[in-house]
Amino acid sequence: MTQKPEYQHLTTDNLPRRLGQITSITRNLGLETSQWKVSDVADGNMNLVFLVECGSSSMIVKQALPYARVVGDSWPLPLDRAYFEYEVLIRQARRDPGSVPEIYHFDRDQAIIAMEMLSPHVILRKKLIAGECVEGLADRLGKFCARTAFRGSDLSLETSEKKKDTAIFQGNIDLMAITEKLIFTDPYFDAEMNHHTKGLDGIVSALRSDIDLKLEVQKMLLKFTANTETLLHGDLHSGSVMCTETETKVIDPEFGFYGPMGFDLGMLISNYLMAYFSQPGHRSDNDLVKYQEWILKVIEDTCIAFEAEFRHLWNTERAGILFPKSMFEDQGHSSQTALDDILEHIWEDAVGICGIEMHRRVLSLAHNADFEEIEDIKIRAPLEARNLIMGHELVLKRKSIRIVKELTTMAYRYNSEKHL
Amino acid sequence: MTQKPEYQHLTTDNLPRRLGQITSITRNLGLETSQWKVSDVADGNMNLVFLVECGSSSMIVKQALPYARVVGDSWPLPLDRAYFEYEVLIRQARRDPGSVPEIYHFDRDQAIIAMEMLSPHVILRKKLIAGECVEGLADRLGKFCARTAFRGSDLSLETSEKKKDTAIFQGNIDLMAITEKLIFTDPYFDAEMNHHTKGLDGIVSALRSDIDLKLEVQKMLLKFTANTETLLHGDLHSGSVMCTETETKVIDPEFGFYGPMGFDLGMLISNYLMAYFSQPGHRSDNDLVKYQEWILKVIEDTCIAFEAEFRHLWNTERAGILFPKSMFEDQGHSSQTALDDILEHIWEDAVGICGIEMHRRVLSLAHNADFEEIEDIKIRAPLEARNLIMGHELVLKRKSIRIVKELTTMAYRYNSEKHL
Repeated sequence: MTQKPEYQHLTTDNLPRRLGQITSITRNLGLETSQWKVSDVADGNMNLVFLVECGSSSMIVKQALPYARVVGDSWPLPLDRAYFEYEVLIRQARRDPGSVPEIYHFDRDQAIIAMEMLSPHVILRKKLIAGECVEGLADRLGKFCARTAFRGSDLSLETSEKKKDTAIFQGNIDLMAITEKLIFTDPYFDAEMNHHTKGLDGIVSALRSDIDLKLEVQKMLLKFTANTETLLHGDLHSGSVMCTETETKVIDPEFGFYGPMGFDLGMLISNYLMAYFSQPGHRSDNDLVKYQEWILKVIEDTCIAFEAEFRHLWNTERAGILFPKSMFEDQGHSSQTALDDILEHIWEDAVGICGIEMHRRVLSLAHNADFEEIEDIKIRAPLEARNLIMGHELVLKRKSIRIVKELTTMAYRYNSEKHL
Repeated sequence: MTQKPEYQHLTTDNLPRRLGQITSITRNLGLETSQWKVSDVADGNMNLVFLVECGSSSMIVKQALPYARVVGDSWPLPLDRAYFEYEVLIRQARRDPGSVPEIYHFDRDQAIIAMEMLSPHVILRKKLIAGECVEGLADRLGKFCARTAFRGSDLSLETSEKKKDTAIFQGNIDLMAITEKLIFTDPYFDAEMNHHTKGLDGIVSALRSDIDLKLEVQKMLLKFTANTETLLHGDLHSGSVMCTETETKVIDPEFGFYGPMGFDLGMLISNYLMAYFSQPGHRSDNDLVKYQEWILKVIEDTCIAFEAEFRHLWNTERAGILFPKSMFEDQGHSSQTALDDILEHIWEDAVGICGIEMHRRVLSLAHNADFEEIEDIKIRAPLEARNLIMGHELVLKRKSIRIVKELTTMAYRYNSEKHL
């Protein structure tokens, strides 16, 4: 056996030497590595990210570190998260073509993924903070969630393939553990890495004293950790989406796992709601009203697109073991009530996850720039308070909130209330 | 690498030669293989089973065939089911000591498990047909279901261990596919391998026309195939239990998989109910009434034992990521409502599975001796009719049947009704 080269982290200096022999890379950037311009563009919490340019060509090279980049080696993380990210990306590309960056090269041992540079795309969260609209955003991500949910499930896949795949992603243990801890557990008691804005103590303490809330959150954790319904992105917030004015792409699925079909949709809506509640900290007057209306419309249209696409796939691509046509259509029996029920099940989970994500982004380790960039905490805290209290209502009432309009109406109401 | 010996099936002739060198076997049977008495005692549908005796020592040697024994090589099955059986057995032995036969030897390539001979144990189904009582049966199996459900879940295990284990058992694809097809799908339409007793056509046709029933059954299939809550036996009917008058052991977990915590309990209750409904075909008068009462009592006591043990483990062994003490007890907050909710969730699933198993044993490929041994189909069909109709009610009302007493009362009522 050939000795595998030891893992070594990339630098702007060593990158051209290390990647300059790989055909799938030089095909794009050319063989003249001395002409390559390499910039460190790491932005997230976890990985090294480089932009490599040569003339009019460019690509992104992402490398996992054996620890979380922002914390350092006191928080070790497995290199294999690059493997899981790659495995999700190729499945997403198959299940929703054009939704994710093209992959040029993957090296499991070095934890490197080289992929398409999205340009002039900007992280969606930045656009939401800047008050910029994106045409087609709702339709694009609604379809993405529906296609990946449906096509990764036993509604669509050969069940042997789905089980093999589920087994692979059960290996993404450490990243799932982050979600289990930071999203579903830490926010609900005084955990070590928690922090929240001064002024919220009363509300936080009320939340943490609500046993019913904690019970419902933990029931959602049971679903997260044990309902392997479909392959999810696993971290679909507005920082995992890149957009131009008219195009939307999804990135960074290293938290990918088999989980509840409503998980990605719920987390996405949650991050839109946080963008919505944080707006008074970023603009005012007419701009504020109009932009907040746009965000609520995006939430509604995302759900409409999700449902329409899911219904379409149910009727045209249902080939898995679940709700087989042999038992329904082939017997002259409609499966539309079953479809309604499954959509209700997905929606209930989405609403629950949405509420929980609203809590963790204000109470747990990783906060959102939407709120964090509001420097005046006297402005920030009351906005976060609305967000926390609505999250609480969503978790507890997730079975009775039947349509997205009820959720956006609720947000509109909270947006006008004073809780602090 | 040493060449692995090719898979070869055991015979009464070659068994002593092939196993006579294995210390863990000769330690029991002695080295004088010429003294070994080997008998073919295969009884189930799937595997070769031999009883090997020498003097007062004995053991069972079970070997998987590359096909189902009763059907032949037209129904290929993977040899690795022996591996899954072994892997479940060692976990069950750890999670509920004394509940399963002791293992002496396992050979994955030859698909052989050598284990303790249970003697004078008899298959529970035979006892139920013969009208024999077993002391401690309910308590033993109630505890078995509770201990394996709890200790194999994220309520108890380290989550990294649970995920690794879940991945392993996702590999039991072919046996899960049998359950998915024969239990959750075939009974509900006119599938190829189905058969049912003459006289039931009207009832069968009514069942298969009920879209709501099929919808609820398929929702349970979604849970079966995608709720990896705990490691289950996967086939816990009265043919997988061996008893003396006072001792009970569980065997044959080759269908083991990570699934809903209520699955084993529900299948067990279902098989008791079929024993109950079939009794008028096996005895009469006072014996009948008394024995039927005993079966209903076993069902009730099994559920009582399950609940008591599950509550005990919740309060004394809850160390997994779900409902952590850090979030409840450590905050001075009771977790008893959460426990009630989880038990309700388990019970709802158990009732659903119970109803479905009642259907498949009368409609699908594999029927139960309880009914099949009633030769006069004019007697058998009306008893099976009660069973089918009660199964229907259980599936549809599983959310509203709150305690086991409601289920046994329902059985008592059906037992006196004429549906054919």
